[in-house]
Amino acid sequence: MAVTTKERILDTTAELFRRYGYTGTGLKQIVAEAQAPFGSIYHHFPGGKEQLGREVILRSGGMYAELFETIMNSVPDVVRGVQNFFEGAAELLRQTDYTDACPIATVALEVASANELLRLATAEVFESWIGVGTRRFAAAGVPKGTAREVAIVLITSLEGAFILSRAMRDTEPVRIAGATTVAALREALADAL
Amino acid sequence: MAVTTKERILDTTAELFRRYGYTGTGLKQIVAEAQAPFGSIYHHFPGGKEQLGREVILRSGGMYAELFETIMNSVPDVVRGVQNFFEGAAELLRQTDYTDACPIATVALEVASANELLRLATAEVFESWIGVGTRRFAAAGVPKGTAREVAIVLITSLEGAFILSRAMRDTEPVRIAGATTVAALREALADAL
Repeated sequence: MAVTTKERILDTTAELFRRYGYTGTGLKQIVAEAQAPFGSIYHHFPGGKEQLGREVILRSGGMYAELFETIMNSVPDVVRGVQNFFEGAAELLRQTDYTDACPIATVALEVASANELLRLATAEVFESWIGVGTRRFAAAGVPKGTAREVAIVLITSLEGAFILSRAMRDTEPVRIAGATTVAALREALADAL
Repeated sequence: MAVTTKERILDTTAELFRRYGYTGTGLKQIVAEAQAPFGSIYHHFPGGKEQLGREVILRSGGMYAELFETIMNSVPDVVRGVQNFFEGAAELLRQTDYTDACPIATVALEVASANELLRLATAEVFESWIGVGTRRFAAAGVPKGTAREVAIVLITSLEGAFILSRAMRDTEPVRIAGATTVAALREALADAL
């Protein structure tokens, strides 16, 4: 299936956001790397950079949730699934020279107090991730309130670990974040028995 | 004691970084808010924005470590100290409309793959924080290797929680990050007995 110009712009922008953040990514850079005519941005995104940013945040958030689901679906055990998810995150960091981490964290921090429309988009993604994790852990037998807490432990641990790992060029924080999440999940599963 | 122009520039830049990040903060904005003449930046920071950025990262990192030490020194119990630290972080988020969180996280993510000099400064700060936490937990009786892990749990949990809390305008993630860190610390203390 042919990739459309719009998809190329979205993919390129997502990658540039990951590497340079929202403010550090320019429209000229996007069209150059996406090999798209400059006018195509305003054709597909009449609201300009802000609208493009919003769509990239929501799209990247959805893709990352799908990645989580795929990894979790590939093993029967929920604990093993979480371990695989963190191991995959550490491996991807190493493979990409510590570039490929959370697709929206940099932008989330940049816009939190600077752009309300984009802040709301990042909040929507985080809430959706919490929902995905909550449903997954609840399905494994964790009571719903605790399942939400474990989902938040997973996401906050991983996000914080990405910051430290990228700065320190070391996967140790991601490894520890995985162990922390697994401990929280195991305790929640034991409490549910 | 009079605050020097250099200190005003450093303080103002730190606040702007917290709110808008490194890329989103301009030199003109810094001198305007610091009420300093434009030339004063290059007088005090001949390396321009990059040098200023580096000094702000290291200075903010040192101040945050001092805040942690002050809170930990104010109570005899290490667990209570960690609880107070997270409660203080949540309170500050609420009071500042979710602006005042980690002084270096936004910059750390922005520069991780874009500016090696500044990345190294953020790595230096994170390593110093890990050292501060490790010494504190080791002094409370946690074996040294485990003390380092608990320190990393504290920092990664808080950093990740700041991202979610700022996006969602809710202190729930910081509260859960505090509970996660306390659980890790309690287990480490129990193992040490």
